[in-house]
Amino acid sequence: MSIADKVMELARRRGFFWTSAELYGGVSGFLDFGPLGKLLKRKIEEKWRYWFVLRNQDFVVEIETPIIAPYKVFEASGHVSHFTDYMVECLKCGRKFRADHVIEEQTGLSGLEGLSEEQLTSIIVEKGVKCPECGGHLGGVKKFNLLFKTAIGPYSENVGFARPEAAQGMFTTFNRVYNVTRNKLPLGIAQVGKVMRNEISPRQGPIRLREFTIMELELFYDPQEPTCPVLDRGEVLRLVPEERVAKKDLTPIEVTVDEALKRGLVACEWLAYFMVTAQKFVQDLGIPWDKQMFVAKLPHERAHYASQVYDQVVKLERWGWVEVSGHAFRTDYDLRGHMASSGEDLRVYKQLPAEVEVEEVEARPVVEAIKEDFGAEAPAVVNALKLMPGERVLEEIQSKGFFEMGKFRVYQKHVSFEKVKKVVKGRRFIPFVAEPSFGAERLVYATMEYAYREREGRTILSLPPDVAPIEAVVLPLVNRDGLPEKAMEVYNALKLRGLVVEYDDSGSIGRRYARADEIGVPLAITIDHQTMEDGTVTVRDRDTWRQVRCPISELPEVIEAYVKRREAKGALKELFQ
Amino acid sequence: MSIADKVMELARRRGFFWTSAELYGGVSGFLDFGPLGKLLKRKIEEKWRYWFVLRNQDFVVEIETPIIAPYKVFEASGHVSHFTDYMVECLKCGRKFRADHVIEEQTGLSGLEGLSEEQLTSIIVEKGVKCPECGGHLGGVKKFNLLFKTAIGPYSENVGFARPEAAQGMFTTFNRVYNVTRNKLPLGIAQVGKVMRNEISPRQGPIRLREFTIMELELFYDPQEPTCPVLDRGEVLRLVPEERVAKKDLTPIEVTVDEALKRGLVACEWLAYFMVTAQKFVQDLGIPWDKQMFVAKLPHERAHYASQVYDQVVKLERWGWVEVSGHAFRTDYDLRGHMASSGEDLRVYKQLPAEVEVEEVEARPVVEAIKEDFGAEAPAVVNALKLMPGERVLEEIQSKGFFEMGKFRVYQKHVSFEKVKKVVKGRRFIPFVAEPSFGAERLVYATMEYAYREREGRTILSLPPDVAPIEAVVLPLVNRDGLPEKAMEVYNALKLRGLVVEYDDSGSIGRRYARADEIGVPLAITIDHQTMEDGTVTVRDRDTWRQVRCPISELPEVIEAYVKRREAKGALKELFQ
Repeated sequence: MSIADKVMELARRRGFFWTSAELYGGVSGFLDFGPLGKLLKRKIEEKWRYWFVLRNQDFVVEIETPIIAPYKVFEASGHVSHFTDYMVECLKCGRKFRADHVIEEQTGLSGLEGLSEEQLTSIIVEKGVKCPECGGHLGGVKKFNLLFKTAIGPYSENVGFARPEAAQGMFTTFNRVYNVTRNKLPLGIAQVGKVMRNEISPRQGPIRLREFTIMELELFYDPQEPTCPVLDRGEVLRLVPEERVAKKDLTPIEVTVDEALKRGLVACEWLAYFMVTAQKFVQDLGIPWDKQMFVAKLPHERAHYASQVYDQVVKLERWGWVEVSGHAFRTDYDLRGHMASSGEDLRVYKQLPAEVEVEEVEARPVVEAIKEDFGAEAPAVVNALKLMPGERVLEEIQSKGFFEMGKFRVYQKHVSFEKVKKVVKGRRFIPFVAEPSFGAERLVYATMEYAYREREGRTILSLPPDVAPIEAVVLPLVNRDGLPEKAMEVYNALKLRGLVVEYDDSGSIGRRYARADEIGVPLAITIDHQTMEDGTVTVRDRDTWRQVRCPISELPEVIEAYVKRREAKGALKELFQ
Repeated sequence: MSIADKVMELARRRGFFWTSAELYGGVSGFLDFGPLGKLLKRKIEEKWRYWFVLRNQDFVVEIETPIIAPYKVFEASGHVSHFTDYMVECLKCGRKFRADHVIEEQTGLSGLEGLSEEQLTSIIVEKGVKCPECGGHLGGVKKFNLLFKTAIGPYSENVGFARPEAAQGMFTTFNRVYNVTRNKLPLGIAQVGKVMRNEISPRQGPIRLREFTIMELELFYDPQEPTCPVLDRGEVLRLVPEERVAKKDLTPIEVTVDEALKRGLVACEWLAYFMVTAQKFVQDLGIPWDKQMFVAKLPHERAHYASQVYDQVVKLERWGWVEVSGHAFRTDYDLRGHMASSGEDLRVYKQLPAEVEVEEVEARPVVEAIKEDFGAEAPAVVNALKLMPGERVLEEIQSKGFFEMGKFRVYQKHVSFEKVKKVVKGRRFIPFVAEPSFGAERLVYATMEYAYREREGRTILSLPPDVAPIEAVVLPLVNRDGLPEKAMEVYNALKLRGLVVEYDDSGSIGRRYARADEIGVPLAITIDHQTMEDGTVTVRDRDTWRQVRCPISELPEVIEAYVKRREAKGALKELFQ
């Protein structure tokens, strides 16, 4: 059996996770987390909070916005237009598939992300790609929008979507959160919560889900003050930069942050800071540094909002290098979309120490051309353009041929540019955004795979003690002589301390150790006859199977210290030397 | 300004919560939680976990199941048929309203829950109820299903719903969770997560939401062993039992659990246990015992799955007595629904100590009648009926006229009953379920309203220290003489300890205290000139404004002890004597 199969079997049998709605044959893309999986997942989320929010609480806050949001939000964000996959339908059996996946599987071609419907359809015809289920002919390739759609309230025209990312909640609340945190940049807004992506035909168990938990942070900063004060430029990143990806060479280079920034491999300091943090966080889950890397996405592979993306990937036994987080340089793309769609000015104002003369490019709407192309929406386009930074409009029109503001695409003909000199007391600007974004379920799986060990024919889940679901197990050596009562006392004391503990009195002591090792309980506390004499118990380490004796009175504190903060205190010091 | 207005104003201004999608005019029924609100909400959720899960971890586990579930789940649960409100549409302006609300507002009538579409339509005609928006005539009353509907994957016929309660996740996973927790009853399965209810026209801000966080627990037990071993029958409940509700007398009686059970006011011990726990939990949020009570729901007001329901209500200034939790006796209703719809046997087996002779009622399917009424589904009905406990089928047919198993309703003609005597070695039965279910957002609001105080013209949010969003604020008395640097040191030490702390150096010290009091920061730490001499700081209590000096070295521990566990240690002991 492969490691992946063993982990999945363990996950099902001991209650970490399994396919949802099993009673009804299961629904692919949805997972249920059982008691142990839920504890593990929560602890991974807490660890993420520690690394991304709590450590940075001077400038990062966490919020919570709804999963369902109105049509306009995802129209402004570009998801209604761009959040699509290519789908192909079998003309014989009617089944639907992701076009690129079917082509890749049957032809060995790769790098299809940039192709159009027509190009993909041609490949299907030329290469004779057939339905993977029934062998029937496939129809033309079409776009399929991955947003889960619903109606809000009793009016069916009142369309809403389940969010595919938490990020839009941070953008739509940006101005209010900026105000309540006293108008300071940099400002990080984080969110941990469910998102939904209506994948066409998800497989790969816990890896590709239609509903999953995102842990996401949008860091807003002044593009003219891009320095990240908490960044250590001496840190080393394992990167596969764009130029290597373009040559299909996926071997990483190891570079200092300083070098990566100087060589332009990473677009901004904040992105680099969160990539460094991501490496540490994932390492802290027990996934070694050399089993992780960051792979750049080529322009045509990137999400529509990003001008640079690195995927943090970890090596998994069955699925190869799998993305566990994405690091996107979203610039001002999203805020300007919401400005154009809502008509609100989301720029921030920064007072300057003194009046200064500045020279800047102004983008002036060409009203006639805009009227012709945008009709009734022309005023919204004109007003939005007036708030846009001219340099950015010029830059994007020059590089991409158009400038996107939410649902509006503005071309060269809609705008004229003029360099102006003026004396100003302050600046108004749209903040830039760097985003790290993690999927919790994949991390649960990856953490379990990396913790999986076998020893003397037994399974041990060597989870880091601070993410282990059950923190200690209490075992009476035998079920007589007052040992069960004593053990129950110890169990209750640990429970009162707020620890997650189990009491197990069934079967031989060896079997009970094995049962605890398999689910990663870091410490096993055995109550034996000596306990009744001197008030000490044995504490056994899951990974080394070594044992020490520890007074009952010290137990709650030493266990808590060990499993919550990974320091060993008292008797445990000896155990973990 | 009313207290409610003041709390809402504070919530918006300081960033607790506000209406979602404000940029786009807001969407009623959806809330955004800002930085402070999110912290408060998380701490309330953690407190719920403490009271309901952690304290009972020997028999309660927490799981996580998806928000979106397939059609079959909610067909089996009865939500497709029964989870509806009555809606009425204005024939002039086209707006849609909840029929009972419009009638109540315009006629003063109440207790409309049990009426049919036709009866409500008659009242509208007779009483001349008009559109509350434009005064136009109203059309006929119709049922509106409150499930948010979507499609899973690319096939539009593959209907899915966003769950309106977490409970179905516990029922569909019951057999697996029962297995992985080693086949023991009682078993509590808890879940904290988002649910969606597509209300027709929600108002009342944070009180009636279309998307909210449910904190729910399904306690499965053997109906023949209904004893709750952790229940203290001497505890007192404040109840408005059904007979009072029926007479529209909502004054509570105070009864011991023992009496409530003996008089049949509460249906089972487990329900009573969670009601007692609910009282303590809500009290622990700062809502006094005498501002809470449990109001019984009359049969026609109850959810379709419940044979007894008590709403725990708390007194709010504007909205009167508002439900913060529901306590439902769900019996075997849900599991038998899923048995009938899935064809799986979800009964549990209990070995008896010795063979015994039992006499029981068997429900025998009348196959011909079932074929006639259920057509192609007859085999499913016959098979399901064979697994049902005969006593229950008989009981419900006698009391309600039918027996419901998921989507199937079986009447007298479909079943015959026979008393049989047999010798058995074990029993197979469907567990009964008692359910406490809380809404987190309402508790956030209620907690804030009860914490709201005014003193000397200033606002103080006297939140219990262990739910206060910010745990301490660090203030340099003046911005010179090295005080800011020292204060930053103290701030960083508290941050490293994992505390949620703020640093504030702007404005007078009085103003900074006021700012902290308003958001409920329990402790303010001031660094002054004496700090530079002897290493002590002042610690100020939010509620009494008393101050004591405390050595910096003790701070992290004493603050943590105080805000996490509400014990005062060291210098704080003096402060809170």
